[in-house]
Amino acid sequence: MDKAKKNTVIHAAAECMAANYKSSQIPMYGDALRMPNRNAVIEIIRDCQKLIFPVYYGDRDLLKLPPEQYSALLMEHIHEKLTRQITLTMPECDENCEVAYAISTAFIERIPAIQELLLKDLSANFEGDPAAYSKEEVLLSYPGMFAIFIYRIAHELYENKVAMIPRMMSEYAHSQTGIDINPGAKIGEYFFIDHGTGVVVGETTIIGDNVKLYQGATLGALSPAGMATNPNVRRHPKVGNNVVIYANSTLLGGATEIGDNVVVGGNAFLTSSVAPNTVVSVKNPEMTFRGKHHRG
Amino acid sequence: MDKAKKNTVIHAAAECMAANYKSSQIPMYGDALRMPNRNAVIEIIRDCQKLIFPVYYGDRDLLKLPPEQYSALLMEHIHEKLTRQITLTMPECDENCEVAYAISTAFIERIPAIQELLLKDLSANFEGDPAAYSKEEVLLSYPGMFAIFIYRIAHELYENKVAMIPRMMSEYAHSQTGIDINPGAKIGEYFFIDHGTGVVVGETTIIGDNVKLYQGATLGALSPAGMATNPNVRRHPKVGNNVVIYANSTLLGGATEIGDNVVVGGNAFLTSSVAPNTVVSVKNPEMTFRGKHHRG
Amino acid sequence: MDKAKKNTVIHAAAECMAANYKSSQIPMYGDALRMPNRNAVIEIIRDCQKLIFPVYYGDRDLLKLPPEQYSALLMEHIHEKLTRQITLTMPECDENCEVAYAISTAFIERIPAIQELLLKDLSANFEGDPAAYSKEEVLLSYPGMFAIFIYRIAHELYENKVAMIPRMMSEYAHSQTGIDINPGAKIGEYFFIDHGTGVVVGETTIIGDNVKLYQGATLGALSPAGMATNPNVRRHPKVGNNVVIYANSTLLGGATEIGDNVVVGGNAFLTSSVAPNTVVSVKNPEMTFRGKHHRG
Repeated sequence: MDKAKKNTVIHAAAECMAANYKSSQIPMYGDALRMPNRNAVIEIIRDCQKLIFPVYYGDRDLLKLPPEQYSALLMEHIHEKLTRQITLTMPECDENCEVAYAISTAFIERIPAIQELLLKDLSANFEGDPAAYSKEEVLLSYPGMFAIFIYRIAHELYENKVAMIPRMMSEYAHSQTGIDINPGAKIGEYFFIDHGTGVVVGETTIIGDNVKLYQGATLGALSPAGMATNPNVRRHPKVGNNVVIYANSTLLGGATEIGDNVVVGGNAFLTSSVAPNTVVSVKNPEMTFRGKHHRG
Repeated sequence: MDKAKKNTVIHAAAECMAANYKSSQIPMYGDALRMPNRNAVIEIIRDCQKLIFPVYYGDRDLLKLPPEQYSALLMEHIHEKLTRQITLTMPECDENCEVAYAISTAFIERIPAIQELLLKDLSANFEGDPAAYSKEEVLLSYPGMFAIFIYRIAHELYENKVAMIPRMMSEYAHSQTGIDINPGAKIGEYFFIDHGTGVVVGETTIIGDNVKLYQGATLGALSPAGMATNPNVRRHPKVGNNVVIYANSTLLGGATEIGDNVVVGGNAFLTSSVAPNTVVSVKNPEMTFRGKHHRG
Repeated sequence: MDKAKKNTVIHAAAECMAANYKSSQIPMYGDALRMPNRNAVIEIIRDCQKLIFPVYYGDRDLLKLPPEQYSALLMEHIHEKLTRQITLTMPECDENCEVAYAISTAFIERIPAIQELLLKDLSANFEGDPAAYSKEEVLLSYPGMFAIFIYRIAHELYENKVAMIPRMMSEYAHSQTGIDINPGAKIGEYFFIDHGTGVVVGETTIIGDNVKLYQGATLGALSPAGMATNPNVRRHPKVGNNVVIYANSTLLGGATEIGDNVVVGGNAFLTSSVAPNTVVSVKNPEMTFRGKHHRG
């Protein structure tokens, strides 16, 4: 064991790291940095699950309370935790941040409406999948339902201009499900995602009611790089009502508008608009079928 | 801080939530709902890992027991936990549920055969990947191997008509690996999945022996919506023996049968059958190569 | 409850398992097997995060130390843990393994340089995404940044011929992000990955500076099976500087070289080289647009 060498190396590297901390363009060292905490944000999601779907996620003991008390109690918890985390996103705010407090209140006010949306999403996710045996199974196990749950929560905070927390939430959903819905997207009722891995829904996407997405469906930007110049321009597609987008189809660009009642078959690649009531199917790509192992 | 407003909002929202709980079509509130517990289900998977691959997952102290005692002890644990969870899927059953008990016994009886299948899968996953350095590495780190492990367990319970638990297991694998194998699929020996993200294998898929799937390979249904009418009709492809399906290829529909010894190249899109001993390769899609930065 | 049957079944199955343990080609039972521990490996990653980005991941109390002491302390921890885990990959080594100790020292020596690379990656990931609001958000939430962080650590160990641990690290990143970068790949500065789900970068890939990959981009091998024969032959593409590869494009084979300043559009499929300064765009696949619901 060359301990002397190790000590020399650590000493030199530590000097170097300290210099790097100091010269970095972002804050790197010290106790001053205030930022929302990922685990605390995940806890808020868990509390929202307990509040919105009590028997599926709630604590057995609390579920003995009258339902008004149960939900009021959870709302108090959520309000307190959310206020603290939002405060941490506002560098100019001290511990008693009125803006953060008011945003939390506005969020709580929206929860019953979010719950109603989620019950519609649950119906859509149950009815859309022939392999689903019950709504309970969909709620407890389906990644699409989980990603939509988090999207509906995160979108509410995004609309209230909360920094960092909405994206923390959506990236948590992404890591658990492979479904990447930017909290800025606007999505209508009865939203359905099947399988889900690889789904991408960009920040300025608009989606109508009764839309179904399958795995790998992308609603993305054309050449994203350099398009941040005008934040008011839509960079992602607009999708109408009653649209189905099958697996691994890619729809790109803010000028791409998909009309009502459109079906986009698997593997499509669209960078322009589609009229309502259209079925888009990709002609099977040209394939070569070559026999092998010819014998005799 | 507008506490008065917060209190008013919470009071009104709590009333609203309580009304929503009551009017919902699915059970939402109360202490009566019996359902399997996701964490308990994951624990059963962990116990199966300890039982089937002891030195890789087992507890150091228990591994000092004679192997018959070690495996009998774990089987007792699994039997007890599984009986409890299966009981929770059966609303008509009380704590002493004979059917659940018998299914657990049948599951235990199958474990040695499952282990033999998994050792064959391990060989396939080691031999199929030039970047693999040892079977131990494949077992401990490869997502394909983990997804196949859970599939073999979940499929056994699916075959015994256990509700909810098989899908909980497969969605756990899905969340960890991006590989979505429905527990209803029937898959032969020496099954290999490389990389795996985006792989989808549908509920009625049939796969032969020695089949290799690469990332993004989909064995799916044609227009899944509305096909639940006849549960006895196969909605997903049938794949023969010794078949390779390369990355991001999509095979759809119950009428699609892939013969033995077929190779499907990357990015294929198949909605009809392929004769045995065929190599299917997609002609490279037509691409435009345009110079940029022309100077002078 | 048929306890007698359960006992008979467990007894027989346990005998069977014990026989399987004994006859298996890989070690299955006993207390002798030495292997790195996945949780310990993840802890090393966490310690590297605390060391390289202190205010974002570090413990509040430790951050009161002078930065040289803070980083030296963490380096001591990492050195000790890493030495232990590397030792476990070397069957011939006892607890005082000089080789493992020296590799850990070499790793520590490289950390300041890794930090500098990661700060450049952070700039690239912030500047490349119009939806990113701050570098802090990118660092804390973006899966691409997390996967690149782990890649830079794992690659260092791979270069030092450490077994198993680099792949454990990269598969941890893969499970969290859907991004699968083999630790053997060589990747230049300012590397950017957006969304990321489904990205695959193979073991012998070479990537230049300022390269951007979008979700589903694959740098893979042609017919991987059977190519392990010559470990010195590159099986995966070489990509130049300033290259953008858009979503779901697949580039395969060691002979495929992508020149500097190339843009590869979405959904491309390339098995041959592309000259510098070229824009490759897939012609939209032929699609059929068919009206539905014709009325009147």
